[in-house]
Amino acid sequence: MTPVTTIQHLSDHVGHDVELQGWVYNTRSSGKLGFLMIRDGTGIVQGVVSSQGVPAEVFAAFETLTQESAITVRGEVREDQRAPGGYEILVSDLEVHQIAEDYPISPKEHGTAFLMDHRHLWLRSRRQHAIMLIRHEVIRACRDFLDSNDFVLVDTPIITPNAVEGTTTLFELEYFGRSAYLTQSGQLYNEANAMALRKVYCFGPTFRAEKSKTRRHLTEFWMVEPEIAYCDLECNIGWAEELVAYIVRRILETRMEQLKVLERDVGRLEVIKTPFPRVSYTEAVDILHKAGVEFEWGGDFGGSDETVISEQYDQPLIVHRFPAAIKAFYMKRDPEDERLVLGVDILAPEGYGEIVGGGQREDDLQVLVQRLEEEDLPREVYEWYLDLRRFGTVPHSGFGMGIERVVAWITGVQHLRETIPYPRTLTRLEP
Amino acid sequence: MTPVTTIQHLSDHVGHDVELQGWVYNTRSSGKLGFLMIRDGTGIVQGVVSSQGVPAEVFAAFETLTQESAITVRGEVREDQRAPGGYEILVSDLEVHQIAEDYPISPKEHGTAFLMDHRHLWLRSRRQHAIMLIRHEVIRACRDFLDSNDFVLVDTPIITPNAVEGTTTLFELEYFGRSAYLTQSGQLYNEANAMALRKVYCFGPTFRAEKSKTRRHLTEFWMVEPEIAYCDLECNIGWAEELVAYIVRRILETRMEQLKVLERDVGRLEVIKTPFPRVSYTEAVDILHKAGVEFEWGGDFGGSDETVISEQYDQPLIVHRFPAAIKAFYMKRDPEDERLVLGVDILAPEGYGEIVGGGQREDDLQVLVQRLEEEDLPREVYEWYLDLRRFGTVPHSGFGMGIERVVAWITGVQHLRETIPYPRTLTRLEP
Repeated sequence: MTPVTTIQHLSDHVGHDVELQGWVYNTRSSGKLGFLMIRDGTGIVQGVVSSQGVPAEVFAAFETLTQESAITVRGEVREDQRAPGGYEILVSDLEVHQIAEDYPISPKEHGTAFLMDHRHLWLRSRRQHAIMLIRHEVIRACRDFLDSNDFVLVDTPIITPNAVEGTTTLFELEYFGRSAYLTQSGQLYNEANAMALRKVYCFGPTFRAEKSKTRRHLTEFWMVEPEIAYCDLECNIGWAEELVAYIVRRILETRMEQLKVLERDVGRLEVIKTPFPRVSYTEAVDILHKAGVEFEWGGDFGGSDETVISEQYDQPLIVHRFPAAIKAFYMKRDPEDERLVLGVDILAPEGYGEIVGGGQREDDLQVLVQRLEEEDLPREVYEWYLDLRRFGTVPHSGFGMGIERVVAWITGVQHLRETIPYPRTLTRLEP
Repeated sequence: MTPVTTIQHLSDHVGHDVELQGWVYNTRSSGKLGFLMIRDGTGIVQGVVSSQGVPAEVFAAFETLTQESAITVRGEVREDQRAPGGYEILVSDLEVHQIAEDYPISPKEHGTAFLMDHRHLWLRSRRQHAIMLIRHEVIRACRDFLDSNDFVLVDTPIITPNAVEGTTTLFELEYFGRSAYLTQSGQLYNEANAMALRKVYCFGPTFRAEKSKTRRHLTEFWMVEPEIAYCDLECNIGWAEELVAYIVRRILETRMEQLKVLERDVGRLEVIKTPFPRVSYTEAVDILHKAGVEFEWGGDFGGSDETVISEQYDQPLIVHRFPAAIKAFYMKRDPEDERLVLGVDILAPEGYGEIVGGGQREDDLQVLVQRLEEEDLPREVYEWYLDLRRFGTVPHSGFGMGIERVVAWITGVQHLRETIPYPRTLTRLEP
């Protein structure tokens, strides 16, 4: 019996007959020779159907095929340097499961709204397929890096009773007669978990109800958030940069074929190596001033500021020690400058913006209570969090890395909506 | 300089001095000899402090320690068969970072509500720590099994416009002026993804607003859901049982220490092997009748029915081919008996109930449209899903496995609330 295989494993079968189960990507015919691009979800391969080499009914079946028709193909695997992927199938048999209706996504150009409305089909196209494979590998790389360094995955809750970073961007839901919110970050829970399991991470969907329509915003996105007990800012920066560098290496090792499909300039990725360059917030403000950008010390960098700053470097850029006023209450003050906190961001090169944000956490109970009061936050909802400073408080740090932003940078995709299977934005909730 | 290590790596340092950073699990003293149980998040080890072997101030510091105080300890690692874990530390130096306030969770018994209110601290205890490590390894095992078998992780959306299994158990939220719902399953999206990437899975939180207070219910729980194109019921059962068996083997290989902490009867896990026994729904009804349970053919099994059925076996039990009336519209009819659908559940042994549910999907457009009509479901919201049958429909199958239920079974824990870091139930949304 002909062995069933997939296109990604064709190299194991050169010179032998195989069976492929898949779909028609496209066809063309020059009279007696038919060319059939077969996609099977693992790749695309060209099949050649010769009217002289196959029974008449097989060639007739080939001629009925439409884009995305479901087929089983049998034939010999041939190595062919000229063929896309390096192999082709000399088709000896063809079985048609279904002749597809007129497929809405043709090779011609389509508008973004149309493609997004057909996201459930658009994912079949070569480019989206490549992005999804890279996304999977980015996520695997995060987990493998953390797991192999003794981090423990501790899932933090999605439905939460309180807000971590203000209420204006929260999705609210009714939870058996009371209000609840979708998580914006697992961080506060991570801190409890780090006191229990030392090095931990959560990895899940996070939500921001931002009324923002830029290419850098999704309302639902995935974030990996490591948190480490007995770890200061320096230690935290070390983990963050090693993670980023590991992901880039891993993608270069395993997903070169997909990077090629995306026409990514891999040279820009191949140079990435630790230690990454570092600037303080204050130095970053200087960079802006030298570039002629008007910016007042104390403000938060916008997307275009980040681009100007990061464009000075061909590596991810570490920016550290921000003004306390623009950062959350739980960030630890810089003992050397009370105006600053021990925060850290990493900006991706090529203008892709912030991919990592984190810092050392305030571990002193009194300071933390005072910070809650200064920010007028309700102490009672943070009592459990304050417990972490009452019972064995230690220096600890952590960060969050946005998966879609990392995928956008690595794939070279301009808009975050292509980096997640089913994007959710201000104007999109379907399919 | 004394190398910093963690308790899980002590075996690499026998006979040498190390530094441990951690917390006091408990202490006892017999005059000149102090015993100090140190926990560092990776394990627990006993430290011995001799008043003659350390400077007076170190022994004095030891005597001030309270439960959960934060400390750094230096000393020699000794192998000791009698010590829990097999090693102990001959303490030469002790540094106190913080003396903890009166810790609320003492070794004495506490009520469940009290422990759940202190979940952020309860996770530090030996038993909860062991469950969390096993949970992490169960999740890793799922991903490793699927990744190494060419499955692609394709995340499905959490915020969805429609209901998959009815609206009564949905959490509703406001999404920029319209209604949206938290996902109950990624399945419909998985089916689109399988047509694009062949073997896929999603792995994320899912939600059910069930007003159920049983030990088997959480409102927020994690589920892994594989979906496979060109795969029938038989193929689907094969993937499901191999996944379950792989997880059990993996836990036995890597988490024996934690199973011991939990006093799990590992003999019950060691016997697990594929192929699992199989019964049809109809045969399962016979088992109930023979056991004297009143049950009418056509009904859905309750928790106690599942227990009676699965107690006949020491393996996970595969139950297949259910009445169409109790299953969702998308399940494929059994060609050999139109009353049935090609569904499959796996029941864990020892009364732990359903851990897997899935089946072959209806791949015929006309039948699917008819099923939607029969169930009075609004066709327009399923138009995108029907597209999958218009454009290259193929036999396909999939299943969902509930992580918390698998963790409960493997750890031998009776209540699902201990199998997730921060359980969400009808009555609990905090911490």
